[in-house]
Amino acid sequence: MGKIVDMLFELKEYRYVKPFRIAHNVADSSTNLEVTLILENGVEGKGEAAPSYRVNGERIETFMSLRDFILGEIKGLDVRNYRVIFKIMDGLRCAPSVKAAVQYAVLDALSVECGVPVYQLLGGARDHVETDKTVGIGTLEEMVEEARKLWREGFTLIKVKVGEDLREDIRKLEAISDATKGAKYIVDANTGYTVKEAITFAREMHARGIDVVVFEQPLPAEDIDGLKIVRFNSPLPVAADESARTRYDVLRLIKEEAVDFVNIKLMKSGISDALAIVEMATTANIGLMIGCMGESSLGISQSVHFASGTGVFMYCDLDSFLMLEEKEFRGKFRRDVNKLIPT
Amino acid sequence: MGKIVDMLFELKEYRYVKPFRIAHNVADSSTNLEVTLILENGVEGKGEAAPSYRVNGERIETFMSLRDFILGEIKGLDVRNYRVIFKIMDGLRCAPSVKAAVQYAVLDALSVECGVPVYQLLGGARDHVETDKTVGIGTLEEMVEEARKLWREGFTLIKVKVGEDLREDIRKLEAISDATKGAKYIVDANTGYTVKEAITFAREMHARGIDVVVFEQPLPAEDIDGLKIVRFNSPLPVAADESARTRYDVLRLIKEEAVDFVNIKLMKSGISDALAIVEMATTANIGLMIGCMGESSLGISQSVHFASGTGVFMYCDLDSFLMLEEKEFRGKFRRDVNKLIPT
Repeated sequence: MGKIVDMLFELKEYRYVKPFRIAHNVADSSTNLEVTLILENGVEGKGEAAPSYRVNGERIETFMSLRDFILGEIKGLDVRNYRVIFKIMDGLRCAPSVKAAVQYAVLDALSVECGVPVYQLLGGARDHVETDKTVGIGTLEEMVEEARKLWREGFTLIKVKVGEDLREDIRKLEAISDATKGAKYIVDANTGYTVKEAITFAREMHARGIDVVVFEQPLPAEDIDGLKIVRFNSPLPVAADESARTRYDVLRLIKEEAVDFVNIKLMKSGISDALAIVEMATTANIGLMIGCMGESSLGISQSVHFASGTGVFMYCDLDSFLMLEEKEFRGKFRRDVNKLIPT
Repeated sequence: MGKIVDMLFELKEYRYVKPFRIAHNVADSSTNLEVTLILENGVEGKGEAAPSYRVNGERIETFMSLRDFILGEIKGLDVRNYRVIFKIMDGLRCAPSVKAAVQYAVLDALSVECGVPVYQLLGGARDHVETDKTVGIGTLEEMVEEARKLWREGFTLIKVKVGEDLREDIRKLEAISDATKGAKYIVDANTGYTVKEAITFAREMHARGIDVVVFEQPLPAEDIDGLKIVRFNSPLPVAADESARTRYDVLRLIKEEAVDFVNIKLMKSGISDALAIVEMATTANIGLMIGCMGESSLGISQSVHFASGTGVFMYCDLDSFLMLEEKEFRGKFRRDVNKLIPT
């Protein structure tokens, strides 16, 4: 029997090695919630919530106070009946990252019960995934230097943050691509552009032959009509991130034909909506990438198992744990440069 | 390790207790394929294919000859990496029911490996489901008699086959509902109506207060435009069955807003597409029922576990094993009148 008898919540703060700047936002640290589910036979399952106020509207200050409510809802349930627990957690719209952590902790406990790692419970489609690493917004020189460093380290896919100044962004991408010939780029505007700026950016990248494989979230999250215009006028694949949090968001994006790609993050969707988005997007021939918020190695482990298990992600952006100061590595995966291998 | 080392194919014929008549089709027997996967540690996984030429275009005569090809594709793969095997089997469009049987056999073997029944591998949402039982096409008197018998036995949901004669069908439903006050009905036209007949039928049922909870497949499979017209003009929930075989069919039905309900059958979709359809339909607020072809207890077991595990089906039509002569019950479930309980 795998009945849940207790659940521990613990907050942990991780500082960024250096402040991480994206369009109109800077992060110095990420305070995350660690969830430990305890089953009656003593088995434990762990999950991590890395909240995002900007994307999810959720506040870390509220998380500890949610513990009694959540435990009250799921206590006595068996992790073998995980869809029951998933469904209950779908109600927790005030804290999508907590939903993700609890849902993952359930799978983690089930995995111990079954003697099969989570990535195989989810289908074991791949035995590893490859991640990019991200260059935050800085001066042109800083960004080129950082990109060059990543390229030398072996990151063949580099994510570049833009969205504050169109002309400057084009110059930065030109310089970065000169310095890292052969690399591929995900460019993320984090809602910073207008429709016209986004189209101009995409066309300029294409005209210069810069190998941008995904152009993420050019517009504000709610502007789906605008996103469709960008998609139909961009030679680069356009991805929704902030616009694609729930399964319902993605169904609308599919119906409206508004995107080429969706960036799934467990912190936005939890396991339940992420699985639904996987099925919908693959059916609709929408490309998939997987990203992260400020997860530590514990939280990134969740996405490594999800991505390896489902095997549907063309690109993985699972680098937050590489950007945070963390005393002890606690992921159920190992890293070989850009390879993340679930264990 | 759960590597596949061998796979056995065996044909078995089951006779219907009495000929089963639906619109423009009668079945005397169902010849099914039994699949046994053998893992290197001796664990076995079983599945059953109950083919349908009318719905899937597949021929039982071809099934034995597919064995070597399929084994060649999946030999050496580990059932823990089931998404890899599912993906390979997605290619087998000449035999959707064989795809279903092999995919289920993989889950069955994985279930033994994990010590967890398949319905819990799939989420364990419910501990049982309830099935209807079907009244095939016959004279009005025969159909009333059969419905009365089922109602007395405890079947509170009765499926009624129509689609050969609109006026006669309305009279039959009136008589059946008089004889089984309190029952609910699924009415299945199996592609037998025109658009106008379907709308008339639905309105007449509604006007007479006959409790038809689902009106299945009024039109030919390919007439999605017509189906949308019926849906928008029917007071009864309209379901696609023959029109909804793959995940791509269902995405189109959702985009076209053509249905209220989808009837999932593992024999049309396999496990992989059935899971995708579950996620898409629940997201789009499309109702779900699960049905069957001519499965024996072995094949119905697959759907009992699928339906219990996912917990998304408002109605279950899993009665074929009750209509076939079968020497030995081999399902991993038990029955209590209309309750099917996975074990």
